[in-house]
Amino acid sequence: MNIEMLDTQTTIVAPATAAGGAVMVIRLSGAEAIAIADRLFRGKQPLNEAAGYTLHYGNIVDADGTFLDDAVVALFRAPRSYTGDDTVEFTIHGSQYIASRVMQLAVNYGARMATAGEFTRRAFLAGKLDLSRAEAVADVIASDSKWSHRVAATQMRGDYAKYLSALRGELLKLCSLLELELDFSEEDVEFANREMLENMLTNIGKQISTLTSSFALGNAIKEGVAVAIVGEPNVGKSTLLNRLVEEDRAMVSDIAGTTRDTIEATRIIDGIRFRFIDTAGMHSTEDQLEQMGIERTRRAMSNAHIVLHVASAEHPQFEDVEIGEEQTYIRIVNKVDKVADTTTKGDNALLYISAKEGLNIDLLIDKMRAVIPDTSDDVMVTNIRHYDALQQASAALDMSLNAMRMNMPTDLLSEDIRQVLHHLGEITGEITSDDILQSIFSKFCIGK
Amino acid sequence: MNIEMLDTQTTIVAPATAAGGAVMVIRLSGAEAIAIADRLFRGKQPLNEAAGYTLHYGNIVDADGTFLDDAVVALFRAPRSYTGDDTVEFTIHGSQYIASRVMQLAVNYGARMATAGEFTRRAFLAGKLDLSRAEAVADVIASDSKWSHRVAATQMRGDYAKYLSALRGELLKLCSLLELELDFSEEDVEFANREMLENMLTNIGKQISTLTSSFALGNAIKEGVAVAIVGEPNVGKSTLLNRLVEEDRAMVSDIAGTTRDTIEATRIIDGIRFRFIDTAGMHSTEDQLEQMGIERTRRAMSNAHIVLHVASAEHPQFEDVEIGEEQTYIRIVNKVDKVADTTTKGDNALLYISAKEGLNIDLLIDKMRAVIPDTSDDVMVTNIRHYDALQQASAALDMSLNAMRMNMPTDLLSEDIRQVLHHLGEITGEITSDDILQSIFSKFCIGK
Repeated sequence: MNIEMLDTQTTIVAPATAAGGAVMVIRLSGAEAIAIADRLFRGKQPLNEAAGYTLHYGNIVDADGTFLDDAVVALFRAPRSYTGDDTVEFTIHGSQYIASRVMQLAVNYGARMATAGEFTRRAFLAGKLDLSRAEAVADVIASDSKWSHRVAATQMRGDYAKYLSALRGELLKLCSLLELELDFSEEDVEFANREMLENMLTNIGKQISTLTSSFALGNAIKEGVAVAIVGEPNVGKSTLLNRLVEEDRAMVSDIAGTTRDTIEATRIIDGIRFRFIDTAGMHSTEDQLEQMGIERTRRAMSNAHIVLHVASAEHPQFEDVEIGEEQTYIRIVNKVDKVADTTTKGDNALLYISAKEGLNIDLLIDKMRAVIPDTSDDVMVTNIRHYDALQQASAALDMSLNAMRMNMPTDLLSEDIRQVLHHLGEITGEITSDDILQSIFSKFCIGK
Repeated sequence: MNIEMLDTQTTIVAPATAAGGAVMVIRLSGAEAIAIADRLFRGKQPLNEAAGYTLHYGNIVDADGTFLDDAVVALFRAPRSYTGDDTVEFTIHGSQYIASRVMQLAVNYGARMATAGEFTRRAFLAGKLDLSRAEAVADVIASDSKWSHRVAATQMRGDYAKYLSALRGELLKLCSLLELELDFSEEDVEFANREMLENMLTNIGKQISTLTSSFALGNAIKEGVAVAIVGEPNVGKSTLLNRLVEEDRAMVSDIAGTTRDTIEATRIIDGIRFRFIDTAGMHSTEDQLEQMGIERTRRAMSNAHIVLHVASAEHPQFEDVEIGEEQTYIRIVNKVDKVADTTTKGDNALLYISAKEGLNIDLLIDKMRAVIPDTSDDVMVTNIRHYDALQQASAALDMSLNAMRMNMPTDLLSEDIRQVLHHLGEITGEITSDDILQSIFSKFCIGK
């Protein structure tokens, strides 16, 4: 546990933008932010006297009063700021030297450097956003495609939290009724209708299961859809990779076994990020390096969402490969440019292409694209922490259903339902611990 | 000539910060900036109705109205903005996807992508800053040490331009008097006292020469002080480089000739950036690769500001090397740890060190540090374009002095002085051409 994370009082400072642009933004937030900024900055009036949500032009000065930079300062007053505390943002020229000097001065004047995610952590602690929304901020920052952005933005707007809170609210009501029975236990009354309770638990279980099963897809959207290109040596796998990512990424030659290690390349198609993995050709070999390559091929294949199994039109046979239940398997006959008239004798289950000539690549892309359904506005789980919590909530739910069917005492039943509530609450942060917070916010970048 | 640079009307858009941080800033500037921003952004009130120098929180929406990001928008109204035009800056979450989507939308709504330096170019054309200050903006952004920052900041504040304008002003007065004589040429009057004129020209010449001679130093501060480490094989040059930069940069072994190509490493000492260049050992050899290495050693040596000539205490002899007039030459006896009692029989012109043990490295650093005088607040020329213009002004000045001494006709004399004025004016931008502007601003980064 980082001790600094427990301190929510000291004014904190950090760059909010990356280095290297025309300008950089330095963010300063906390009770002393405005006082510290006034020592750094000479504008038309002291920031101390200015209203929130205003901009100020002036000079940043060093400790000895010498000119450091001219800057625009954005002033936010508590509680109307990201963190909820007074916040000052300096837009300075994009020089590493100036940036570090400004932060040094702020530290000399009483601030300390912010730890990763500390601004958002303070926003969470100030009740400015719930935990799943705070986590979505990091995902929004990392989003690099239309779809990964949309899933994260939905979550950041709080739709996800609203949905979970609604589920929790229903359960909480039930739980209160159950616990009321405990207060009157000697009188043997039933405030909570058992049949209604069972229906409700079953219904909530279904909703949780919809969420958990959205994880595979949600995660694919967030991390990219992994597409393994496998097959025997010299069937044109590397040529296909290069064609799919539209660049000369993998080395190509007529020599079987040109690709030894797996080669990965990314392309965003129709707003979805695909991660294509070219692999070593599978065949029996005594060569130790080749064997290592084939082992890596197997691993890539088992981790892929989509497996493209490639054969050459010259020998259109497919060895059996092991495909998981959730994987999409596409058989491709490549090099149709090398043989005459393949399409007519075509097998409908096979896709006939020429990676070299670009023939039918659009059909292949359509097939891969179809793996991600157009359900962008559905609530989707992309966060492994949420997935784990949902799994645990689901397990606790099963236990409470069992408890009910076995006519277990009300206090045990109530305890099981409290477990469900606990795990759902972990996602939105209604239930939380410093350790959970630490592990979440340490994954953020500095300055957020 | 980039045709877009001639267009100063269209609203322009570009990222003002680098990608990869917690937030990014997108800058939109021009007559339509506010109208375009209002189509992108939903805040409490339309930006159209808001005052300049205010901040606004709200949502950025896609063309179909879907939520893209929540953002803070900074509003600047003409002429109180960097460019002098209406300017809107969006602080968005640091996602490449969101950034490019916002810019795409701005372009769809009538803006175009800004070319490199175009915001600053517009600021210059609007008279917000002179040319040498505009150029200093780029240097301030690039500054990575206290000294390079100070030189650039002095220039950005306009001290340099003020100095040159003062020089130009004096000359201009003289020139007017001379040209007045031309109007009355038939009356043979002398409005400009020739002796005073000569004194003034000589004086201005001296000032120009001070500026041009500051270039070597100014450039060293801007680009880093180049320090070549040379000597015979196996005297510990690479060990010295590693010691000076305090990291294990160059490969070290007991085998003579370990360093073949030159190896460069940088360290900022006391606010000054030093570029240390380790070189191949100089000796007679038939080996072609070694000969190439030695040729590169010679080149590194002739380009260096400081040459550290290293010999081993075991054989403390120094072969003659060629040192330029402006170079600082320091002879070093290394490996004193290998011999007993060297300091007593020490030659004062030599510096006795042990790179391996770190002995006397501080003395060596002091010697190198002393090469840069503590004259930070002096006006200093760091820009090659300014240096060229000053050289040409100086040449024209010499011609006018000659013309005067040879009693050339007033119109020729005046013509020569006009040349001096022209070249000085090129620096501040009082005299300029589209080609000069193009070449200056194209070196800027996008978004500035």
